[in-house]
Amino acid sequence: MSKGEQTRRNILNRALAMASEVGMEGLSIGALAEEARLSKSGLFAHFKSKEALQLEVLQEAINRFTAQVVQPVLAAPRGEARLRLLFDRYLEWLRGEDDRLGCPFQKMAAEYSNRSGPVRDRLVESMNDWREQVARVVSSAVSAGYLRADLDVGVFVHEFAGIAMVFQQSCRLLRDPQAEARARQVFEALLLRSRSVPA
Amino acid sequence: MSKGEQTRRNILNRALAMASEVGMEGLSIGALAEEARLSKSGLFAHFKSKEALQLEVLQEAINRFTAQVVQPVLAAPRGEARLRLLFDRYLEWLRGEDDRLGCPFQKMAAEYSNRSGPVRDRLVESMNDWREQVARVVSSAVSAGYLRADLDVGVFVHEFAGIAMVFQQSCRLLRDPQAEARARQVFEALLLRSRSVPA
Repeated sequence: MSKGEQTRRNILNRALAMASEVGMEGLSIGALAEEARLSKSGLFAHFKSKEALQLEVLQEAINRFTAQVVQPVLAAPRGEARLRLLFDRYLEWLRGEDDRLGCPFQKMAAEYSNRSGPVRDRLVESMNDWREQVARVVSSAVSAGYLRADLDVGVFVHEFAGIAMVFQQSCRLLRDPQAEARARQVFEALLLRSRSVPA
Repeated sequence: MSKGEQTRRNILNRALAMASEVGMEGLSIGALAEEARLSKSGLFAHFKSKEALQLEVLQEAINRFTAQVVQPVLAAPRGEARLRLLFDRYLEWLRGEDDRLGCPFQKMAAEYSNRSGPVRDRLVESMNDWREQVARVVSSAVSAGYLRADLDVGVFVHEFAGIAMVFQQSCRLLRDPQAEARARQVFEALLLRSRSVPA
Protein backbone atom coordinates (compact mmCIF):
# COMPACT_ATOMS: atom_id res chain seq x y z
CA MET A 1 0.00 0.00 0.00
CA SER A 2 1.45 3.40 -0.96
CA LYS A 3 1.92 6.07 1.70
CA GLY A 4 -0.96 8.06 0.16
CA GLU A 5 -3.28 5.05 0.33
CA GLN A 6 -2.20 4.37 3.92
CA THR A 7 -3.02 7.96 4.92
CA ARG A 8 -6.37 7.63 3.17
CA ARG A 9 -7.16 4.38 5.04
CA ASN A 10 -6.21 5.92 8.37
CA ILE A 11 -8.44 8.93 7.78
CA LEU A 12 -11.31 6.66 6.78
CA ASN A 13 -10.97 4.43 9.85
CA ARG A 14 -10.88 7.45 12.13
CA ALA A 15 -13.82 9.04 10.31
CA LEU A 16 -15.93 5.88 10.73
CA ALA A 17 -15.18 5.80 14.47
CA MET A 18 -16.05 9.49 14.70
CA ALA A 19 -19.29 9.05 12.71
CA SER A 20 -20.30 6.17 15.02
CA GLU A 21 -19.90 8.53 17.97
CA VAL A 22 -21.18 11.89 16.76
CA GLY A 23 -22.96 11.03 13.51
CA MET A 24 -22.12 11.68 9.88
CA GLU A 25 -23.15 15.32 10.04
CA GLY A 26 -20.92 15.73 13.08
CA LEU A 27 -17.82 14.61 11.12
CA SER A 28 -15.29 17.39 11.57
CA ILE A 29 -12.91 17.91 8.66
CA GLY A 30 -10.78 20.08 10.95
CA ALA A 31 -10.45 17.41 13.64
CA LEU A 32 -9.74 14.67 11.07
CA ALA A 33 -7.09 16.79 9.35
CA GLU A 34 -5.42 17.56 12.67
CA GLU A 35 -5.28 13.88 13.68
CA ALA A 36 -3.81 12.96 10.29
CA ARG A 37 -1.36 15.90 10.58
CA LEU A 38 -2.70 17.40 7.38
CA SER A 39 -4.02 20.83 6.52
CA LYS A 40 -7.72 20.97 5.66
CA SER A 41 -6.79 21.35 1.99
CA GLY A 42 -4.44 18.37 2.40
CA LEU A 43 -7.39 16.32 3.65
CA PHE A 44 -9.56 17.53 0.78
CA ALA A 45 -6.89 16.17 -1.58
CA HIS A 46 -7.93 12.71 -0.31
CA PHE A 47 -11.68 13.37 -0.10
CA LYS A 48 -13.03 16.02 -2.41
CA SER A 49 -15.90 17.18 -0.20
CA LYS A 50 -17.54 16.41 3.13
CA GLU A 51 -20.26 14.54 1.23
CA ALA A 52 -17.66 12.48 -0.64
CA LEU A 53 -16.07 11.62 2.71
CA GLN A 54 -19.48 10.65 4.17
CA LEU A 55 -20.15 8.37 1.21
CA GLU A 56 -16.78 6.69 1.67
CA VAL A 57 -17.36 6.30 5.40
CA LEU A 58 -20.69 4.64 4.64
CA GLN A 59 -19.00 2.37 2.08
CA GLU A 60 -16.34 1.46 4.67
CA ALA A 61 -19.11 0.46 7.12
CA ILE A 62 -20.79 -1.61 4.38
CA ASN A 63 -17.46 -3.32 3.56
CA ARG A 64 -16.90 -4.24 7.20
CA PHE A 65 -20.45 -5.53 7.55
CA THR A 66 -20.00 -7.62 4.38
CA ALA A 67 -16.71 -9.07 5.65
CA GLN A 68 -17.93 -9.74 9.20
CA VAL A 69 -21.51 -10.85 8.56
CA VAL A 70 -22.45 -11.50 4.93
CA GLN A 71 -19.41 -13.40 3.63
CA PRO A 72 -19.01 -15.91 6.50
CA VAL A 73 -22.75 -16.59 6.38
CA LEU A 74 -22.73 -17.33 2.64
CA ALA A 75 -19.80 -19.70 3.19
CA ALA A 76 -21.88 -21.81 5.61
CA PRO A 77 -24.03 -24.74 4.40
CA ARG A 78 -27.57 -23.74 3.35
CA GLY A 79 -30.40 -24.48 5.76
CA GLU A 80 -30.23 -24.44 9.54
CA ALA A 81 -26.46 -23.82 9.80
CA ARG A 82 -26.51 -20.75 7.56
CA LEU A 83 -29.62 -19.32 9.20
CA ARG A 84 -28.20 -19.69 12.71
CA LEU A 85 -24.86 -18.23 11.66
CA LEU A 86 -26.71 -15.27 10.14
CA PHE A 87 -28.35 -14.60 13.49
CA ASP A 88 -25.12 -15.07 15.50
CA ARG A 89 -23.01 -12.84 13.26
CA TYR A 90 -25.66 -10.16 13.13
CA LEU A 91 -26.01 -10.08 16.92
CA GLU A 92 -22.23 -9.84 17.21
CA TRP A 93 -22.19 -6.92 14.78
CA LEU A 94 -24.98 -5.11 16.63
CA ARG A 95 -23.25 -5.59 19.98
CA GLY A 96 -20.43 -3.54 18.44
CA GLU A 97 -16.71 -3.97 18.06
CA ASP A 98 -16.06 -2.38 21.43
CA ASP A 99 -17.89 -0.35 24.07
CA ARG A 100 -17.87 2.82 22.01
CA LEU A 101 -18.59 1.90 18.43
CA GLY A 102 -21.89 0.06 18.32
CA CYS A 103 -23.57 -0.24 14.93
CA PRO A 104 -22.82 2.75 12.70
CA PHE A 105 -25.94 2.06 10.61
CA GLN A 106 -28.22 2.65 13.61
CA LYS A 107 -26.70 6.10 14.09
CA MET A 108 -27.00 6.85 10.38
CA ALA A 109 -30.59 5.58 10.23
CA ALA A 110 -31.66 8.03 12.93
CA GLU A 111 -29.68 10.80 11.26
CA TYR A 112 -30.96 10.37 7.70
CA SER A 113 -34.62 9.52 8.34
CA ASN A 114 -35.56 13.15 7.74
CA ARG A 115 -32.84 14.07 5.25
CA SER A 116 -32.52 13.56 1.54
CA GLY A 117 -29.53 13.37 -0.77
CA PRO A 118 -26.88 10.92 -1.94
CA VAL A 119 -25.82 9.68 1.54
CA ARG A 120 -29.40 8.85 2.50
CA ASP A 121 -29.98 7.18 -0.89
CA ARG A 122 -26.92 4.97 -0.50
CA LEU A 123 -27.89 4.12 3.09
CA VAL A 124 -31.41 3.11 2.03
CA GLU A 125 -29.99 1.04 -0.84
CA SER A 126 -27.62 -0.80 1.51
CA MET A 127 -30.41 -1.50 4.03
CA ASN A 128 -32.68 -2.83 1.30
CA ASP A 129 -29.76 -4.99 0.08
CA TRP A 130 -29.37 -6.37 3.59
CA ARG A 131 -33.06 -7.23 3.94
CA GLU A 132 -32.88 -9.01 0.55
CA GLN A 133 -29.80 -10.84 1.73
CA VAL A 134 -31.70 -12.07 4.80
CA ALA A 135 -34.66 -13.06 2.58
CA ARG A 136 -32.32 -15.11 0.36
CA VAL A 137 -30.87 -16.98 3.34
CA VAL A 138 -34.41 -17.70 4.60
CA SER A 139 -35.52 -18.86 1.13
CA SER A 140 -32.51 -21.15 0.87
CA ALA A 141 -33.48 -22.66 4.24
CA VAL A 142 -36.91 -23.33 2.73
CA SER A 143 -35.36 -24.96 -0.38
CA ALA A 144 -33.06 -26.98 1.87
CA GLY A 145 -36.16 -28.36 3.62
CA TYR A 146 -35.35 -26.88 7.03
CA LEU A 147 -38.15 -24.29 6.95
CA ARG A 148 -41.76 -24.91 5.89
CA ALA A 149 -42.48 -24.73 2.17
CA ASP A 150 -45.49 -22.44 2.79
CA LEU A 151 -43.50 -20.01 4.97
CA ASP A 152 -44.16 -16.31 4.36
CA VAL A 153 -40.56 -15.20 3.86
CA GLY A 154 -41.43 -11.49 4.13
CA VAL A 155 -43.05 -12.02 7.54
CA PHE A 156 -40.05 -14.09 8.70
CA VAL A 157 -37.63 -11.33 7.61
CA HIS A 158 -39.69 -8.69 9.47
CA GLU A 159 -39.68 -10.83 12.63
CA PHE A 160 -35.95 -11.54 12.30
CA ALA A 161 -35.16 -7.84 11.88
CA GLY A 162 -37.38 -6.98 14.85
CA ILE A 163 -35.62 -9.42 17.17
CA ALA A 164 -32.30 -7.85 16.16
CA MET A 165 -33.43 -4.23 16.60
CA VAL A 166 -34.90 -4.87 20.05
CA PHE A 167 -31.70 -6.73 21.01
CA GLN A 168 -29.63 -3.76 19.91
CA GLN A 169 -31.66 -1.32 21.98
CA SER A 170 -31.75 -3.62 25.02
CA CYS A 171 -28.04 -4.31 24.80
CA ARG A 172 -26.57 -0.91 24.05
CA LEU A 173 -28.99 1.69 25.34
CA LEU A 174 -30.77 -0.15 28.16
CA ARG A 175 -27.68 -2.27 29.03
CA ASP A 176 -30.00 -5.13 29.91
CA PRO A 177 -27.88 -8.17 30.91
CA GLN A 178 -30.71 -10.44 29.68
CA ALA A 179 -30.75 -8.87 26.20
CA GLU A 180 -28.97 -11.69 24.40
CA ALA A 181 -30.72 -14.53 26.23
CA ARG A 182 -34.11 -12.99 25.45
CA ALA A 183 -33.24 -12.38 21.78
CA ARG A 184 -32.14 -16.01 21.44
CA GLN A 185 -35.34 -17.23 23.10
CA VAL A 186 -37.50 -15.22 20.67
CA PHE A 187 -35.39 -16.43 17.70
CA GLU A 188 -35.78 -20.09 18.78
CA ALA A 189 -39.56 -19.57 18.96
CA LEU A 190 -39.48 -18.10 15.44
CA LEU A 191 -37.52 -21.12 14.14
CA LEU A 192 -39.80 -23.57 15.93
CA ARG A 193 -42.97 -22.21 14.36
CA SER A 194 -41.31 -21.90 10.93
CA ARG A 195 -39.73 -25.34 10.71
CA SER A 196 -41.00 -27.95 8.28
CA VAL A 197 -41.05 -30.58 11.04
CA PRO A 198 -41.83 -28.87 14.36
CA ALA A 199 -39.92 -30.44 17.23
CA MET B 1 -50.84 30.97 31.62
CA SER B 2 -48.53 33.87 32.47
CA LYS B 3 -46.42 35.50 29.77
CA GLY B 4 -43.31 33.93 31.31
CA GLU B 5 -44.88 30.46 31.20
CA GLN B 6 -46.02 31.04 27.63
CA THR B 7 -42.47 31.97 26.59
CA ARG B 8 -41.18 28.88 28.36
CA ARG B 9 -43.71 26.65 26.55
CA ASN B 10 -42.80 28.16 23.19
CA ILE B 11 -39.09 27.59 23.76
CA LEU B 12 -39.75 24.01 24.82
CA ASN B 13 -41.92 23.24 21.77
CA ARG B 14 -39.31 24.67 19.45
CA ALA B 15 -36.52 22.85 21.28
CA LEU B 16 -38.32 19.51 20.91
CA ALA B 17 -38.78 20.08 17.17
CA MET B 18 -35.11 21.04 16.90
CA ALA B 19 -33.96 17.99 18.92
CA SER B 20 -36.05 15.73 16.65
CA GLU B 21 -34.17 17.13 13.69
CA VAL B 22 -30.58 17.59 14.85
CA GLY B 23 -30.51 15.65 18.11
CA MET B 24 -30.30 16.72 21.73
CA GLU B 25 -26.60 17.52 21.54
CA GLY B 26 -27.31 19.65 18.48
CA LEU B 27 -29.72 21.88 20.41
CA SER B 28 -28.46 25.40 19.91
CA ILE B 29 -29.09 27.80 22.78
CA GLY B 30 -28.19 30.67 20.46
CA ALA B 31 -30.72 29.68 17.80
CA LEU B 32 -33.45 29.07 20.40
CA ALA B 33 -32.79 32.42 22.06
CA GLU B 34 -32.90 34.20 18.72
CA GLU B 35 -36.24 32.60 17.76
CA ALA B 36 -37.70 33.52 21.14
CA ARG B 37 -36.25 37.03 20.79
CA LEU B 38 -34.29 36.59 23.98
CA SER B 39 -30.64 37.05 24.82
CA LYS B 40 -28.78 33.85 25.71
CA SER B 41 -28.85 34.89 29.35
CA GLY B 42 -32.58 35.58 28.97
CA LEU B 43 -33.03 32.00 27.79
CA PHE B 44 -30.92 30.68 30.65
CA ALA B 45 -33.35 32.43 33.02
CA HIS B 46 -35.92 29.88 31.81
CA PHE B 47 -33.60 26.86 31.60
CA LYS B 48 -30.59 26.95 33.88
CA SER B 49 -28.26 24.91 31.67
CA LYS B 50 -28.19 23.07 28.37
CA GLU B 51 -28.57 19.82 30.31
CA ALA B 52 -31.61 21.17 32.20
CA LEU B 53 -33.12 22.13 28.84
CA GLN B 54 -32.40 18.65 27.42
CA LEU B 55 -34.08 17.02 30.42
CA GLU B 56 -37.15 19.21 29.95
CA VAL B 57 -37.24 18.48 26.22
CA LEU B 58 -37.16 14.76 27.04
CA GLN B 59 -39.93 15.23 29.61
CA GLU B 60 -42.00 17.12 27.02
CA ALA B 61 -41.60 14.18 24.59
CA ILE B 62 -42.63 11.77 27.36
CA ASN B 63 -45.68 13.92 28.18
CA ARG B 64 -46.79 13.93 24.56
CA PHE B 65 -46.26 10.19 24.26
CA THR B 66 -48.30 9.66 27.43
CA ALA B 67 -51.13 11.87 26.14
CA GLN B 68 -51.18 10.43 22.62
CA VAL B 69 -50.49 6.76 23.32
CA VAL B 70 -50.60 5.67 26.96
CA GLN B 71 -53.70 7.50 28.25
CA PRO B 72 -56.12 6.62 25.40
CA VAL B 73 -54.96 3.00 25.60
CA LEU B 74 -55.59 2.75 29.33
CA ALA B 75 -59.07 4.22 28.78
CA ALA B 76 -59.99 1.35 26.41
CA PRO B 77 -61.57 -1.88 27.70
CA ARG B 78 -59.02 -4.54 28.77
CA GLY B 79 -58.39 -7.41 26.38
CA GLU B 80 -58.46 -7.31 22.59
CA ALA B 81 -59.66 -3.69 22.29
CA ARG B 82 -56.91 -2.27 24.50
CA LEU B 83 -54.20 -4.38 22.86
CA ARG B 84 -55.24 -3.34 19.35
CA LEU B 85 -55.48 0.30 20.35
CA LEU B 86 -51.99 0.08 21.84
CA PHE B 87 -50.66 -1.11 18.49
CA ASP B 88 -52.59 1.49 16.47
CA ARG B 89 -51.60 4.42 18.65
CA TYR B 90 -47.97 3.35 18.77
CA LEU B 91 -47.78 3.03 14.99
CA GLU B 92 -49.33 6.48 14.66
CA TRP B 93 -46.74 7.91 17.05
CA LEU B 94 -43.85 6.26 15.22
CA ARG B 95 -45.12 7.53 11.88
CA GLY B 96 -44.61 10.99 13.35
CA GLU B 97 -46.72 14.07 13.71
CA ASP B 98 -45.60 15.40 10.34
CA ASP B 99 -43.00 14.67 7.68
CA ARG B 100 -40.20 16.19 9.71
CA LEU B 101 -40.66 15.18 13.30
CA GLY B 102 -40.76 11.40 13.44
CA CYS B 103 -40.21 9.82 16.84
CA PRO B 104 -37.88 11.90 19.03
CA PHE B 105 -37.03 8.84 21.15
CA GLN B 106 -35.47 7.06 18.16
CA LYS B 107 -33.13 9.99 17.63
CA MET B 108 -32.29 10.13 21.32
CA ALA B 109 -31.75 6.36 21.52
CA ALA B 110 -29.10 6.53 18.80
CA GLU B 111 -27.56 9.59 20.41
CA TYR B 112 -27.31 8.30 23.97
CA SER B 113 -26.34 4.65 23.36
CA ASN B 114 -22.68 5.51 23.94
CA ARG B 115 -23.12 8.38 26.38
CA SER B 116 -23.71 8.51 30.09
CA GLY B 117 -25.26 11.08 32.38
CA PRO B 118 -28.67 12.28 33.57
CA VAL B 119 -30.27 12.61 30.10
CA ARG B 120 -29.35 9.06 29.18
CA ASP B 121 -30.53 7.79 32.59
CA ARG B 122 -33.91 9.47 32.20
CA LEU B 123 -34.24 8.16 28.63
CA VAL B 124 -33.48 4.59 29.74
CA GLU B 125 -35.95 4.92 32.61
CA SER B 126 -38.70 6.11 30.27
CA MET B 127 -38.03 3.30 27.79
CA ASN B 128 -38.14 0.71 30.56
CA ASP B 129 -41.39 2.30 31.78
CA TRP B 130 -42.82 1.95 28.28
CA ARG B 131 -41.87 -1.72 27.99
CA GLU B 132 -43.48 -2.34 31.39
CA GLN B 133 -46.55 -0.48 30.22
CA VAL B 134 -46.79 -2.77 27.18
CA ALA B 135 -46.27 -5.82 29.43
CA ARG B 136 -49.15 -4.68 31.67
CA VAL B 137 -51.50 -4.31 28.69
CA VAL B 138 -50.51 -7.79 27.48
CA SER B 139 -50.98 -9.28 30.97
CA SER B 140 -54.39 -7.67 31.23
CA ALA B 141 -55.31 -9.28 27.89
CA VAL B 142 -54.31 -12.61 29.43
CA SER B 143 -56.44 -11.95 32.54
CA ALA B 144 -59.32 -10.89 30.33
CA GLY B 145 -59.11 -14.30 28.59
CA TYR B 146 -58.21 -12.93 25.17
CA LEU B 147 -54.61 -14.20 25.24
CA ARG B 148 -53.45 -17.67 26.35
CA ALA B 149 -52.92 -18.20 30.06
CA ASP B 150 -49.50 -19.79 29.43
CA LEU B 151 -48.30 -16.92 27.20
CA ASP B 152 -44.72 -15.77 27.77
CA VAL B 153 -45.42 -12.05 28.23
CA GLY B 154 -41.73 -11.11 27.91
CA VAL B 155 -41.48 -12.81 24.52
CA PHE B 156 -44.71 -11.15 23.37
CA VAL B 157 -43.39 -7.71 24.39
CA HIS B 158 -40.12 -8.33 22.53
CA GLU B 159 -42.04 -9.35 19.40
CA PHE B 160 -44.40 -6.38 19.71
CA ALA B 161 -41.49 -3.95 20.07
CA GLY B 162 -39.72 -5.56 17.11
CA ILE B 163 -42.72 -5.17 14.81
CA ALA B 164 -42.88 -1.48 15.76
CA MET B 165 -39.16 -0.80 15.30
CA VAL B 166 -39.05 -2.44 11.87
CA PHE B 167 -42.19 -0.49 10.91
CA GLN B 168 -40.52 2.74 11.95
CA GLN B 169 -37.43 2.06 9.87
CA SER B 170 -39.45 0.87 6.85
CA CYS B 171 -41.78 3.82 7.06
CA ARG B 172 -39.45 6.71 7.74
CA LEU B 173 -36.02 5.77 6.44
CA LEU B 174 -36.84 3.30 3.65
CA ARG B 175 -40.16 5.03 2.78
CA ASP B 176 -41.64 1.64 1.97
CA PRO B 177 -45.32 2.10 1.00
CA GLN B 178 -46.01 -1.43 2.27
CA ALA B 179 -44.57 -0.71 5.74
CA GLU B 180 -47.89 -0.43 7.56
CA ALA B 181 -49.59 -3.33 5.77
CA ARG B 182 -46.63 -5.60 6.56
CA ALA B 183 -46.48 -4.50 10.22
CA ARG B 184 -50.21 -5.22 10.59
CA GLN B 185 -49.80 -8.63 8.97
CA VAL B 186 -47.01 -9.57 11.40
CA PHE B 187 -49.04 -8.24 14.35
CA GLU B 188 -52.09 -10.30 13.33
CA ALA B 189 -49.88 -13.39 13.17
CA LEU B 190 -48.59 -12.61 16.68
CA LEU B 191 -52.16 -12.26 18.00
CA LEU B 192 -53.27 -15.45 16.27
CA ARG B 193 -50.58 -17.61 17.85
CA SER B 194 -51.05 -15.94 21.26
CA ARG B 195 -54.83 -16.15 21.53
CA SER B 196 -56.51 -18.46 24.00
CA VAL B 197 -58.82 -19.79 21.28
CA PRO B 198 -56.96 -19.70 17.94
CA ALA B 199 -59.28 -18.82 15.09
